[in-house]
Amino acid sequence: MEQLKQRILTEGRVKSGNVLKVDSFLNHQMDIHLFDEMGKAFKERYKEDEITKIVTIEASGIGIACIVARHFNVPVVFAKKSESRNLDGDLYTSPIYSFTHQKEYMVRVSKKFLSAEDKVLVIDDFLANGKALIGLLDIIKQSGATLVGAGIAIEKGFQGGGDALREQGIRIESLAIIDEMGEDFIKFRD
Amino acid sequence: MEQLKQRILTEGRVKSGNVLKVDSFLNHQMDIHLFDEMGKAFKERYKEDEITKIVTIEASGIGIACIVARHFNVPVVFAKKSESRNLDGDLYTSPIYSFTHQKEYMVRVSKKFLSAEDKVLVIDDFLANGKALIGLLDIIKQSGATLVGAGIAIEKGFQGGGDALREQGIRIESLAIIDEMGEDFIKFRD
Repeated sequence: MEQLKQRILTEGRVKSGNVLKVDSFLNHQMDIHLFDEMGKAFKERYKEDEITKIVTIEASGIGIACIVARHFNVPVVFAKKSESRNLDGDLYTSPIYSFTHQKEYMVRVSKKFLSAEDKVLVIDDFLANGKALIGLLDIIKQSGATLVGAGIAIEKGFQGGGDALREQGIRIESLAIIDEMGEDFIKFRD
Repeated sequence: MEQLKQRILTEGRVKSGNVLKVDSFLNHQMDIHLFDEMGKAFKERYKEDEITKIVTIEASGIGIACIVARHFNVPVVFAKKSESRNLDGDLYTSPIYSFTHQKEYMVRVSKKFLSAEDKVLVIDDFLANGKALIGLLDIIKQSGATLVGAGIAIEKGFQGGGDALREQGIRIESLAIIDEMGEDFIKFRD
């Protein structure tokens, strides 16, 4: 998606440890117009699939998922990372290791909101090593729902998580795939 | 807002410790149609104000804030609760005590995304004792931005946080204010 790639090139900053900062439009300040264009792009790619639910993970996936959900006319369910008095009853859970936060945490989805009747599109802002996505796929599998695929804003292709999942037959549509990046360059996959 | 009140009455469940569970449409599964109607309602209430930015706090405020932001045609900035490698540089910070999670945490907003030129609307899903909102207002004050007001989906009026802030002259528009609730009843303020 050209518009997203341009924003990454003009506003993104590459930091040590494979960090790409895009906090001016994606995951701290959020450009709702851009999210809306991303929603159109995902809808175009998944228009033949009868998505019934969008699943994402807190926190930075939620904004994109909600704007994307307007284009599919379905609700969003977000997996929770923290224990909460507001989360009780039967849960699907899966452990995820976060390199960003350098710890493992359990993600949780209430069993009420995912079932075998659902056809699920997973939406997230980033895909790097794939740990978060694998955790969400595990939860979807537990629920018996059909995984249609994933829609990712920025995939760090050089970290391999996306391609490893594609090799397992999982459909992953990323709007910008970065194959290489350094302090003064970002190279997208064609 | 009648539609929201009806959803609270039909799907909300009152639990011990003043917990109102509305996870089927507000803060775990999210009904995007309802959020869109909430966006219209907030826009109607703040239509005379030239909002330049919407501020919220992760995680459950983000979805509502993004859908609401479409109606104001402005970006969203969400305050972060956790330390992150993706958050560096100059930050506004404020400590918030969470009764839901029973701990104090620091919320953070990058100085890049709030300035004295901004006219800010704060959006959140819940207002109870007001601690989260007070933390956000502190950050907005630090930035020199103008606080226009807050837009809240559900205010637990009996916990007093909203009225205490109104007494200080802060404009708070809540779409459903609960003045009393128990296991088998929910009473809204007129």
